[in-house]
Amino acid sequence: MEELFRPLIGATEAESVRALAGTPAYVYSEQLLRRRAAEVLAFPAPYGLKARFAIKACPSAAILRLFHSLGLGFDASSVYEAERLILAGIPAAEISLSSQELPADLGSIVRKGVRYDACSLHQLEEYGKLFPGAELSLRVNPGLGSGHSRRTNVGGPSSSFGIWHEKLPQALAICAKYGLRIGVLHTHIGSGADPEVWARVAGMNLDTLRSLPDAHTLNMGGGFKIARVPGEKQTDLQVVGRAVAAMLEDFARETGRHIRLEIEPGTYLAAQCGAIVSSVQDIVDTGADGYNFLKLDTGMTELLRPSLYGAQHGVNLYPAKDTGRRLPYLVAGHCCESGDILTPAPADPEGLLPRELPEAAIGDLCVIEGAGAYSAAMSAKNYNSFPEAPELLLRCDGSLALIRRRQTLEQIIGNEILP
Amino acid sequence: MEELFRPLIGATEAESVRALAGTPAYVYSEQLLRRRAAEVLAFPAPYGLKARFAIKACPSAAILRLFHSLGLGFDASSVYEAERLILAGIPAAEISLSSQELPADLGSIVRKGVRYDACSLHQLEEYGKLFPGAELSLRVNPGLGSGHSRRTNVGGPSSSFGIWHEKLPQALAICAKYGLRIGVLHTHIGSGADPEVWARVAGMNLDTLRSLPDAHTLNMGGGFKIARVPGEKQTDLQVVGRAVAAMLEDFARETGRHIRLEIEPGTYLAAQCGAIVSSVQDIVDTGADGYNFLKLDTGMTELLRPSLYGAQHGVNLYPAKDTGRRLPYLVAGHCCESGDILTPAPADPEGLLPRELPEAAIGDLCVIEGAGAYSAAMSAKNYNSFPEAPELLLRCDGSLALIRRRQTLEQIIGNEILP
Repeated sequence: MEELFRPLIGATEAESVRALAGTPAYVYSEQLLRRRAAEVLAFPAPYGLKARFAIKACPSAAILRLFHSLGLGFDASSVYEAERLILAGIPAAEISLSSQELPADLGSIVRKGVRYDACSLHQLEEYGKLFPGAELSLRVNPGLGSGHSRRTNVGGPSSSFGIWHEKLPQALAICAKYGLRIGVLHTHIGSGADPEVWARVAGMNLDTLRSLPDAHTLNMGGGFKIARVPGEKQTDLQVVGRAVAAMLEDFARETGRHIRLEIEPGTYLAAQCGAIVSSVQDIVDTGADGYNFLKLDTGMTELLRPSLYGAQHGVNLYPAKDTGRRLPYLVAGHCCESGDILTPAPADPEGLLPRELPEAAIGDLCVIEGAGAYSAAMSAKNYNSFPEAPELLLRCDGSLALIRRRQTLEQIIGNEILP
Repeated sequence: MEELFRPLIGATEAESVRALAGTPAYVYSEQLLRRRAAEVLAFPAPYGLKARFAIKACPSAAILRLFHSLGLGFDASSVYEAERLILAGIPAAEISLSSQELPADLGSIVRKGVRYDACSLHQLEEYGKLFPGAELSLRVNPGLGSGHSRRTNVGGPSSSFGIWHEKLPQALAICAKYGLRIGVLHTHIGSGADPEVWARVAGMNLDTLRSLPDAHTLNMGGGFKIARVPGEKQTDLQVVGRAVAAMLEDFARETGRHIRLEIEPGTYLAAQCGAIVSSVQDIVDTGADGYNFLKLDTGMTELLRPSLYGAQHGVNLYPAKDTGRRLPYLVAGHCCESGDILTPAPADPEGLLPRELPEAAIGDLCVIEGAGAYSAAMSAKNYNSFPEAPELLLRCDGSLALIRRRQTLEQIIGNEILP
């Protein structure tokens, strides 16, 4: 496990990123993306596996195309994501759409070949009206979940995702009304799942499958925990998968039905594979009873997770001049916002936890690790009018490819109209 | 005070917004923007006032131009914001730049006529190298602050903003080295300030001014609390201002120096003046022991404050058919994200607090109030690939003007490069 916390981007690569694209910039490691994809594709599934990348984690076309070339399918969580996949050249048959929001034009996206996952009774009814007699996927909230916070879970009574399990009879009535066949049963209980919870939900799902005679596929969603810093848990997909595989085999012996498995990892596939290369902008302190602040040219504009969840990300400082000393630094973002802190206390965005780092000087490179998922995809973009950062792919041969240009100020204001 | 919580956007206006721009859409009230500007411009200041809008709160050009026409100046918190103001047609002389990040080309923006506020010893040194003998503004952290959370404050030892007050001698040494004159003393202690804290900081600032003989202006920043929901405090600018005005008069009697006052409100000027018009996308529940969820076509993509701070925003539902019943609803955003909740518990983004609202149906209009500041400006833009929402201005004559078009998916991916 130790190798997990080896820097993704070392001093030399960080310097090359800065020379090519300036800072801040995201950089993704093709090598690690390939490795995580291979692990996901080896997930145990006795009767076939379809692994779908949850593109909301990192929707850049270059990443999507890499994953497609490796055999992954895709999970879109909005109709925009489905269209984005198609624009990136991904065949519609590789895409399933599981959205909180009913697409304004559901018919059009389904006719393109995207598989629709009905997430509420209303969505099911609308699908039925448009496509009577068709097959679809049905998302059920099994009443149990595990989220990344004590907040709402992705499953359970405080989650609005999927049809509440007690309402399955109503869902089946709608299916009967329109002659719909439920080919896929979908549950997704969210990040942070442990093998035991996964097996428990799998058991509940197999029970549900008994009342869904047309179902040939069970989609268990994502929710595989990864470790960004020492002390966090890294899911072993083989361990998680084997428990469920055995249950699928038992189910097959009992019912004669060979259920295909789908999974939808986002974080697992991408989180550890990206980093943000930034430059130290300033170093200030607030006296003997205060803090040393390392002020970077990145922050919540590129990485919102620390401010939002108190999420922990590795910080690697590469001093141009090594003094041999290490100092405790609070790492601060560049926004005029008190909460723009990159080193909060774990799971406590309001707390401050200085990190011990090599003594820094202005201009030094500083790399924020674990920024491959929900980073470029979910940040406070354009706050303080900072432009979106560029993205690069560190290829297996060591070369860097720009996969997204830095936004310009003109683009930020391009949709404004002066009255 | 009751009138504070009258809906900014009623059912009829919301319907017009939807007809003109679709949902979700931001809409700002010109009438209320003018009123708040008038209140700010009447801030007591015996020797002159310059009120600057902190544009990070709401940087749309139409709003900037309206405020400019009313006599407000501007505070930019990044060089991008300063350039954005200039592109909106605001004269550079109306702009001060107080940034965590040293502009890559400081010389260029200062030569355009923007006033620079040095926020660290490093920034002061760089300014001195470029503009020896010039006058500038110096931002000092007075060692006291009051932020909107228990997190880091904008002033005090856990804030990195400004030069720590104990380091003033070093700052003066840099000024002496380059012949710099400190014309403006700047402190900003952040949102949530109460009159007592303001007066206390003003006293500290006046003490500091004794050692800054060239200073003619005191900039006290912003930090005026406003109420978004009943129970929250609304600053009375006259009360806050009068205490400081008396201190400035005492200072003048004692020293013969007539100190001009600057303030930099963002929230006060804009927060209550904007709302988000959305449509009810779905209504789901999680059984007898669960919740009723009202699922909107907006969420953290347009309004991050509830997820980030547990901020409270008014929610007005306009049912197409009034059943006379009221029900408790958890109002959820449209993202595939467990934390995308618009009705968290106060100051607890992890907590859930249903709101009692009129019984809703899919398609009803739902307006989120208090979304004029740090909403379009600071949201999880493009998460789940949702496009940026359009912005409209509700003119004093009741007409609606589109001031920002809805983003397209093509724009979202426009900077991507396929390797």
